[in-house]
Amino acid sequence: MKNYIIHDEWKIIEEGFNREDNRITESLLSIGNGRNGQRANFEEKYSGDSLRGSYVAGIYYPDKTRVGWWKNGYPEYFAKILNAANWIGIDIWVDGEALDLNKAEIRSFYRDLDMRSGLLTRRFVAQFSSGKQIEVHAKRFLSIADQEIGAISYSVKALNFSGELSFLPYIDGDVVNEDSNYDENFWIGISQKITGSSGYVCLETKKTAFQVCTGMNFRATFNNNLIAPELTAVEKEKFVGAEFKIQVKPGDEVCIEKYVAISSTLYYTPKKLQEATEKTLKRATDKGFDRLFANQETAWKIRWETSDIHIEGDVAAQQGIRFNIFQLNQTYLGDDERLNIGPKGFTGEKYGGVTYWDTEAYCLPFTLGTAPQMVSKNLLLYRYKHLQKAIENAEKLGFTDGAALYPMVTINGEECHNEWEITFEEIHRNGAIAFGIYNYIAYTGDKDYLAPYGFEVLLALSRFWSQRINWSEVKKKFVMLGVTGPNEYENNVNNNFHTSYMAVWTLKYTLEAIDYLKKEHPLLFEDLVIKLKLKELKETSRWKKVIKDMYFPYDFTRKIYLQQDGFLDKELIPVSQLDPKDRPINQKWSWDRILRSCYIKQADTLQSIYWFEDEFDRGSLERHFDFYEPLTVHESSLSSCIHSILAASIGRQEKAYEMYLRTARLDLDDYNSDTCDGLHITSMGGTWMAFVQGFGGMRVRNEQLHFNPFIPEGWKSYSFRINFRNAHLEFTMDNSNFRIVNHSKVAVEIVVQGKEYTLAAKKELILEN
Amino acid sequence: MKNYIIHDEWKIIEEGFNREDNRITESLLSIGNGRNGQRANFEEKYSGDSLRGSYVAGIYYPDKTRVGWWKNGYPEYFAKILNAANWIGIDIWVDGEALDLNKAEIRSFYRDLDMRSGLLTRRFVAQFSSGKQIEVHAKRFLSIADQEIGAISYSVKALNFSGELSFLPYIDGDVVNEDSNYDENFWIGISQKITGSSGYVCLETKKTAFQVCTGMNFRATFNNNLIAPELTAVEKEKFVGAEFKIQVKPGDEVCIEKYVAISSTLYYTPKKLQEATEKTLKRATDKGFDRLFANQETAWKIRWETSDIHIEGDVAAQQGIRFNIFQLNQTYLGDDERLNIGPKGFTGEKYGGVTYWDTEAYCLPFTLGTAPQMVSKNLLLYRYKHLQKAIENAEKLGFTDGAALYPMVTINGEECHNEWEITFEEIHRNGAIAFGIYNYIAYTGDKDYLAPYGFEVLLALSRFWSQRINWSEVKKKFVMLGVTGPNEYENNVNNNFHTSYMAVWTLKYTLEAIDYLKKEHPLLFEDLVIKLKLKELKETSRWKKVIKDMYFPYDFTRKIYLQQDGFLDKELIPVSQLDPKDRPINQKWSWDRILRSCYIKQADTLQSIYWFEDEFDRGSLERHFDFYEPLTVHESSLSSCIHSILAASIGRQEKAYEMYLRTARLDLDDYNSDTCDGLHITSMGGTWMAFVQGFGGMRVRNEQLHFNPFIPEGWKSYSFRINFRNAHLEFTMDNSNFRIVNHSKVAVEIVVQGKEYTLAAKKELILEN
Repeated sequence: MKNYIIHDEWKIIEEGFNREDNRITESLLSIGNGRNGQRANFEEKYSGDSLRGSYVAGIYYPDKTRVGWWKNGYPEYFAKILNAANWIGIDIWVDGEALDLNKAEIRSFYRDLDMRSGLLTRRFVAQFSSGKQIEVHAKRFLSIADQEIGAISYSVKALNFSGELSFLPYIDGDVVNEDSNYDENFWIGISQKITGSSGYVCLETKKTAFQVCTGMNFRATFNNNLIAPELTAVEKEKFVGAEFKIQVKPGDEVCIEKYVAISSTLYYTPKKLQEATEKTLKRATDKGFDRLFANQETAWKIRWETSDIHIEGDVAAQQGIRFNIFQLNQTYLGDDERLNIGPKGFTGEKYGGVTYWDTEAYCLPFTLGTAPQMVSKNLLLYRYKHLQKAIENAEKLGFTDGAALYPMVTINGEECHNEWEITFEEIHRNGAIAFGIYNYIAYTGDKDYLAPYGFEVLLALSRFWSQRINWSEVKKKFVMLGVTGPNEYENNVNNNFHTSYMAVWTLKYTLEAIDYLKKEHPLLFEDLVIKLKLKELKETSRWKKVIKDMYFPYDFTRKIYLQQDGFLDKELIPVSQLDPKDRPINQKWSWDRILRSCYIKQADTLQSIYWFEDEFDRGSLERHFDFYEPLTVHESSLSSCIHSILAASIGRQEKAYEMYLRTARLDLDDYNSDTCDGLHITSMGGTWMAFVQGFGGMRVRNEQLHFNPFIPEGWKSYSFRINFRNAHLEFTMDNSNFRIVNHSKVAVEIVVQGKEYTLAAKKELILEN
Repeated sequence: MKNYIIHDEWKIIEEGFNREDNRITESLLSIGNGRNGQRANFEEKYSGDSLRGSYVAGIYYPDKTRVGWWKNGYPEYFAKILNAANWIGIDIWVDGEALDLNKAEIRSFYRDLDMRSGLLTRRFVAQFSSGKQIEVHAKRFLSIADQEIGAISYSVKALNFSGELSFLPYIDGDVVNEDSNYDENFWIGISQKITGSSGYVCLETKKTAFQVCTGMNFRATFNNNLIAPELTAVEKEKFVGAEFKIQVKPGDEVCIEKYVAISSTLYYTPKKLQEATEKTLKRATDKGFDRLFANQETAWKIRWETSDIHIEGDVAAQQGIRFNIFQLNQTYLGDDERLNIGPKGFTGEKYGGVTYWDTEAYCLPFTLGTAPQMVSKNLLLYRYKHLQKAIENAEKLGFTDGAALYPMVTINGEECHNEWEITFEEIHRNGAIAFGIYNYIAYTGDKDYLAPYGFEVLLALSRFWSQRINWSEVKKKFVMLGVTGPNEYENNVNNNFHTSYMAVWTLKYTLEAIDYLKKEHPLLFEDLVIKLKLKELKETSRWKKVIKDMYFPYDFTRKIYLQQDGFLDKELIPVSQLDPKDRPINQKWSWDRILRSCYIKQADTLQSIYWFEDEFDRGSLERHFDFYEPLTVHESSLSSCIHSILAASIGRQEKAYEMYLRTARLDLDDYNSDTCDGLHITSMGGTWMAFVQGFGGMRVRNEQLHFNPFIPEGWKSYSFRINFRNAHLEFTMDNSNFRIVNHSKVAVEIVVQGKEYTLAAKKELILEN
């Protein structure tokens, strides 16, 4: 745990330079705009510890996988989003000595990320070995209004000397990933140019042949007056820059405004790429920093209007939830169904920027609740477009007849993971993808999604499940052997409750979908039967048998479902009895010891119990929670949100709050000592769920919004907003009232604590707490 | 399966060049002398497919491990025996055109390995594009009489032309391993020299800093007359050679005798290394090829005298068993307890030349039966010397108080394997190491091994087992969770019968050892208690509880022990019903499918049933065999020998013979399509076991040799020899008699088919069959 970030309602603040935590701060203050992500690296040279990261959405390299022993079915490569050209660079020299905060004496240092506008600010005074002092004030943002634009304002004031300042703004494409086999370079230079203050570097990725063109231009002022200094072009391999020198006296200030355009062949043909970059660059330069930033502020204001959560009386919690919402919003804008949300977004290299089941399980509720419907639909279409690859993936493993196994990790639909116990066994991801379809339709009411897209995916998933199980002669039941549940601290277990439950549920839901399509769209269904070679009678009768006779491990004494067949053979010692020195166990214990222990990395049985809460009575929910929560170490960032919601659901408000805080401030306080690698972007969706579904008690049942809110102790009030179908609602909870405002033009029916209310357009409803 | 090797009683013969099978032949015709191994690569240039391999015992490199995701407890490196300097090289040119059998037209080709003397012979006629023909006759061997010497005789006859022959005998240290990360070179040149015909290259391994010096000298004859041609030194990086040219007419023959000395810092200090090499080289050169070879023949004759198995009436079986014995004998001579027997010996790169549990389980019986006692003892001392490392290894995984986990794979006592399901879970290897001690003492009667060595190992193993199990509240038994048995087609299972059985047996045997030591060596035992911090009462009472209450999965219907808890949940479809297209499943199926299948890679439950046969009645043996054998695919080379012995034991002679043939000719017929990687050296010990314990029915019970022999159908007779304590016995079985000759000076008691006989010194016993 770290505790150096200053608590503030809207800003993430570092006061004084925490050199040894620089990677953490670089992650926390990352900026992005859905197309690009940029860690909070310094503009000027820095020889201290830093993870340089400039990422461009969708631009990946298929790196060679590393395995001990190859196993049939492993993928050939691991896709990783690349560290792309450094666009922030501005080197500074004072009388020939380079500014480097690892070498200069830092007299004062402050940086913050303003979440209202996505503006990263840094101010410091640095003293050189010569005693000369400068004051620097740097600001930058990536525009969400014009997604190919980044802008930097960087000013240097001479404090106590007369002498020469040199500036070198540049674009540097000669970059590597920290995580690469034998420090391979993944970029090939295609073209580059520098003319006056304007230049670009166009690069192509090896193997995948994506091209990215990064252009820059800048203008300089001297004591706020525009100047036209003499520029010296600096060109190296994959590097362009323009240097100028200027004489200063104490009190003089030189400021650079650097404009950057980043375009990729995801959006332009290679031929048009350079032209497009130059056009964008001209647009940015013409507007200037202030107008670009005004647009940025407006765009963010609109985002915050539909997604902000406000808390009165708890600054730490307020900062936490806004940080989560902010980062989600700048990671994925939802306008391109080829993109998705990686576990670390564009804030670091770990996980390679690729897609996991996190999206459906933890991010979709957020986009459903806060963004236009199309954003969530694009997340679903991402999978739909990968269906053929998922079928091929299943074929590689020996499945037939159109069964699909979606990859555990992917960027283009192909599996990129190569640990057998996960690649082949963590198949509950198929369940999450089916649940995503269900969740989308239940929330939006968009049943029309089924016929062209959803059903095709559901059918392929059901076909997979019906082949993946087998009949056990001893149990006289269908069993699911050799799986790994969400709890990755158990591998290759039999009859993992969550996986089996998702399998059976998927079969049921697919049967429902067939019934619906046959009834409502019989002609479309006929087409689908032929297209998908559906042998309805044969296939559905098998599914029905499986639904009827699936085996779930159960403890008749405790009256709970067991995470897997052998769970009770383990020594059940609550986490509370572990020596704190042993935590986190994934850093302190051998893998062998973890696997044999009872400790649960993340919600597993409780994951499906959360998803299908209504199929369990209150007593059962309590029994399961009371059994599993004490054994859960929450060493996955995706765990505490689920436990928080369930705790809220059974009235354990204190526990719900504890779990919530853990997920909300996971990165800000570096709970798991890994924020240095990047932020836990997908778990931030879980934080939002924990708030709205936990504290707000929001559920969707039978096309209606249900609420069962409470307010954590010590808070004065909180409020959140929700898009639901055509309505936009605002909820405010304080210690006396629960107030609902319908901001939209349609009436909405909602159910609060079991009671139904109709809320007319533009009206509000105030209920006593 | 391949079928191109000519059947012969003493030779492994290839007639005609099987170009596409060259790697297989290179493996099969490997020569070795315990210190060095050499694949049957060609002396002259060869641009076709070939795996070059010259290996020096004990000389390894710690290569970087490759993992997808690092797990706590994994080793930092993977040790591999290196491909060392090429000492066989002799380049040949005819009028400037290089001899390369991949380019020349091959008019006739023959090669064989004579197992009587370890002599590799090759003869061919090659025609160059010019039409010029030469006849080549090459012979080579690695001396087992003088283990640092290799010798080659290479003659070239001009058949149909007059012209110039050029010869370049050389030593080339600029070699790589085929299996290396990014083609890294592992050798650094230390020194090299070429003077006249004599030269050397001294190399040092990176990181491990072993040095190997390889020297050569040669002499040449022209039509059998010694000549002194003019020599041109050829020197490159890590390469020395001496070239000469000679004019020939049709019928002229030039012969080179090349002598090689290979010394390493395993046996000399770096300072003395070069001198030692030169000394050995002089010794070899002085003796000349013929005398060196005469010594080789004598040395092999002695080896064969105690280890040959002779079969009348089945050339394929005869060739098979001799090939197995020959390869074992040339892999490990047993004179250095730092060396051991790798699964592929020195015949290829796979498995890195490192030690597995194969040694104790499959090789020790062979050395016990055929070699001096010290050879087997050295194999045990290898582990004794690694005990401290095994304790450290266990500590890394969280075990305490002197518990030891021996590595799955090692060269120096440190674990080199990095797949969690094997590294951490295939812990039955600890059982094999305990069984090795038991087996050695039972066979040799050398109980004195216990006090200084054996007990210390046993105690550490028992400490491991008693910590590795845990109490199951539901089973009210001790369980062993998360293990992988010898059947690596199931991973991370609970209560693997074999592992649990070995655990309990080890505890029992350690208790017996304590009783013995207390009674026979009370003073020594007192010392051991203090040295090993043995809390006898506390520790042994825990062991006794475990012995009493260990859980073994059992099928009460079939009355058999189950391989693991969930085995019966699988679909049990006999191997015979598999589509032949699906075999071998490890090449045709995904790992996922294999893991969920019932198919057994190698004897697992049957492994311990074989080891502790006397603890099961005949009916039980039959039930277990009849259940497991039909489900076993024998895709490990270590499987069929165990099944063969058990089949013999329950009177299934035909099955015993089928399984025997599979192991005996595994490499000769390339059963598993992997002989190209090298030979299955350790499984060859299993072949010997299958013969002597299967056909011969040999067992040791209560200090006595027992026999229960039969002769496979169609054979006229077989005979084998056994060292047993001070006796040397010869057994001959034909269709009428079982004849035992006591070649030693002491009387021996033996039990044949349950009847006890005393056989006086130098006497024979003939029993009716």
